[in-house]
Amino acid sequence: MSSLQHVNPTVKGIRESAHSGLQSLAAHVTQEIAQGVQKPFKEVIDISSGDPHKAGMKPISFVRQVLAVCLHPELLGNKTLPLDVRLRAQRLLEVCDGGSVGSYTDSSGMPHVRQSIAEFIMRRDVGVHSHAKDVFISAGSQRGLMVILKLLASGEGDTQTGVLTPRPCPHTLSTLLDDAGVALVPYQLMEDRGWAVDLSELHRALKCHVQDWKSIEEVIRFAAAERLLLLIDEVYQDSVYGQGKEFISFKRVLFEMGKEYSGKVQMVSLHSLSSACMGECGLRAGYMELVNMDPEVTHFVDTMLCTDISSPVTGQLALDLMVNPPRPGDPSYDTYTQEILHIQATLSQNAQRAHEFLNDLPGMSSQPAKGGIYLYPRLHLPSEIIENAKKLEVEAGVLYCQMLLKEEGVFLGAGCQNGETTGNHYLRLCILVPADTLEEVLARLASFHLRLMDTCP
Amino acid sequence: MSSLQHVNPTVKGIRESAHSGLQSLAAHVTQEIAQGVQKPFKEVIDISSGDPHKAGMKPISFVRQVLAVCLHPELLGNKTLPLDVRLRAQRLLEVCDGGSVGSYTDSSGMPHVRQSIAEFIMRRDVGVHSHAKDVFISAGSQRGLMVILKLLASGEGDTQTGVLTPRPCPHTLSTLLDDAGVALVPYQLMEDRGWAVDLSELHRALKCHVQDWKSIEEVIRFAAAERLLLLIDEVYQDSVYGQGKEFISFKRVLFEMGKEYSGKVQMVSLHSLSSACMGECGLRAGYMELVNMDPEVTHFVDTMLCTDISSPVTGQLALDLMVNPPRPGDPSYDTYTQEILHIQATLSQNAQRAHEFLNDLPGMSSQPAKGGIYLYPRLHLPSEIIENAKKLEVEAGVLYCQMLLKEEGVFLGAGCQNGETTGNHYLRLCILVPADTLEEVLARLASFHLRLMDTCP
Repeated sequence: MSSLQHVNPTVKGIRESAHSGLQSLAAHVTQEIAQGVQKPFKEVIDISSGDPHKAGMKPISFVRQVLAVCLHPELLGNKTLPLDVRLRAQRLLEVCDGGSVGSYTDSSGMPHVRQSIAEFIMRRDVGVHSHAKDVFISAGSQRGLMVILKLLASGEGDTQTGVLTPRPCPHTLSTLLDDAGVALVPYQLMEDRGWAVDLSELHRALKCHVQDWKSIEEVIRFAAAERLLLLIDEVYQDSVYGQGKEFISFKRVLFEMGKEYSGKVQMVSLHSLSSACMGECGLRAGYMELVNMDPEVTHFVDTMLCTDISSPVTGQLALDLMVNPPRPGDPSYDTYTQEILHIQATLSQNAQRAHEFLNDLPGMSSQPAKGGIYLYPRLHLPSEIIENAKKLEVEAGVLYCQMLLKEEGVFLGAGCQNGETTGNHYLRLCILVPADTLEEVLARLASFHLRLMDTCP
Repeated sequence: MSSLQHVNPTVKGIRESAHSGLQSLAAHVTQEIAQGVQKPFKEVIDISSGDPHKAGMKPISFVRQVLAVCLHPELLGNKTLPLDVRLRAQRLLEVCDGGSVGSYTDSSGMPHVRQSIAEFIMRRDVGVHSHAKDVFISAGSQRGLMVILKLLASGEGDTQTGVLTPRPCPHTLSTLLDDAGVALVPYQLMEDRGWAVDLSELHRALKCHVQDWKSIEEVIRFAAAERLLLLIDEVYQDSVYGQGKEFISFKRVLFEMGKEYSGKVQMVSLHSLSSACMGECGLRAGYMELVNMDPEVTHFVDTMLCTDISSPVTGQLALDLMVNPPRPGDPSYDTYTQEILHIQATLSQNAQRAHEFLNDLPGMSSQPAKGGIYLYPRLHLPSEIIENAKKLEVEAGVLYCQMLLKEEGVFLGAGCQNGETTGNHYLRLCILVPADTLEEVLARLASFHLRLMDTCP
């Protein structure tokens, strides 16, 4: 029999996502609306986390068309679908065992897709070699990260494996580290310098969002000197939009730093189908590339992935389409390109628009974003709110989000969920949403915020 | 930096699947054929594990059609697809956030699908109540089992959580238990009594494959007396074919045993989209129903599933279709019913055919199967083979499988992979394959086996 006292102590120690309280409140408000309770808004808009399709962004047609044919191969004969869609589906079905997406694949992913990913990485990194055997596909990049963390977890107390983690960090991270049994070792990024790191804390500068060549080199030298494994979240490599900024991978920089570094520094780079342009969160697929990892260690990555048996095939096939899109001349090329450009333009324009709008509000300040899909503006809250939060035993940023949700039906994240501990208050909003949704959010947010600042001068 | 010495000791202790050696050999033989090496066979037939589509079984059209429309909603207007397919897809898209399968879902599964599953269970168990809140969807039933095992894992040595496990057991189980950190506590099933349990070992009889009402009651009484949590693999509930046998769930029996048991005995029942009739292994979806679980414990199931963020949406939607198929009068009803009946008939006829064929071979004996998708015949090997295996330091059953693979291109599993430790030797073959594939396997197997028995009299 199992009762609370029998639950694995490690599992009991997993911190619940700080997000879950606000999620319950959002569900409650939504339910009230469904039950006919009168509200000054028709629906809750949730842009607290990165879920582009939920927010109304459209999927890439090419990806969906190919997957539809793979699921129902009779569509191979459907002439209303572009020829390259059908040829691509046929090719992908050929690499599925038994010609069906219903068959298991290797635990580490389909060899064909791993090869496509390795070729994509080589093109991206201007020729730096990549091998399919170092590419591991999993049901989302978080699952891949989990495998690496569990692999390296050991010790207790002072000897426990630690993960140097920036603050702010992704709001899903602390639950993951707890479950893996590793310690979160935080370092604070500095907001007033565009979220750069405090040099005295990490000895080297690194910039949040988009790092330039020089700062990546510094991080690599730091890792080499301290013999650290670099876990690199590169899921937003398709969404860099800061002026004059382009995506540069850590691996590319590493291999230009010469043999001293390129043959030595160990890296795990993560990418995901949930990334900005695809936004296919529900299909659950991501991959990681291991760089300079000891083959004996890599072996255990395989072993760990075996317990998942196989990652979802529709997701794996979509990864193949993500890294190997239509080429110029293909029937789907123009539509595909237009759709991608539209997403990138929406993201870049939204980043600019939200940044300026929020900075103009009294009691709010925002750093410009150069990449990724979040803004992280700071709240300068009236002391009355902060006192009120103390009485209610809730973090002031969370109280702000609760009130915003109840009064205006806008669901944003609170900075404390991203590990903020400086005593400052922040909001987190996903900006990969249709432009009119963003306008609606900003209008509701301004209305609430100005009311709040008015009543608590 | 991570090298072998830094790898988590628990991870290092995970036993590799005994299956992986034969898998490598099969891959090697397949590669040789591709390279033009002459063999007496054209391809390797792998029926060592349950992967029906890989073996040539066809998917259920209704499931694939609905999923294709969900992925590419323009197909909603395609009149060549049955009306109920399009209506069902429309309904499922309505319950996806943002109307897209690309959105995340709750970590425990989509509320709509959990509700469909609870209703299916109630129909199946003739009215015994089932609640959506006790149903948890995961990326395959093995993932669900893993969550429960990790939840209950604690202690070391004598106090380590143990799982009473039948031998033979599923060949993927030992890796899973190692990763979860629980001990495998085996009990031996008795072949000559149709794989029944040795009473002196477990104090109660339980029968492998298909248990009747009385033997289920005995297991439940045993669990109640010993205060054990029952982990019930009911993934083959749609594939019971023994004469006069029908599927009876543990939960149904429990609730007919009166309040003394029905309010007390804790159960976790697992079911999967990879089950016999659907065979959709690659879509990765399964569910578990928790019965009589302490809500405080259930809470941690939620927490654990949070680290997966969300299970694959195409799989979740397919689960909805599995538990809620077309009804009489629906345009897809006849085709659906024919396809299901064809699969069940193939399975039942194959079970009979393979059992009789294998029993007729000298040095082989087989128990009849009454459900599930495997046969597990015993090998009575000549002493020469057993000596040879000892010299080669390989289990004799594995040696047999290696030779069969090399000489005839047939890949079967070896009983030692199922935890067999009695010193007897067994084969494992999946019988959910097209009838002509089974014939080809039996012919090649007989040819090899008779040659072996001839040369080693």
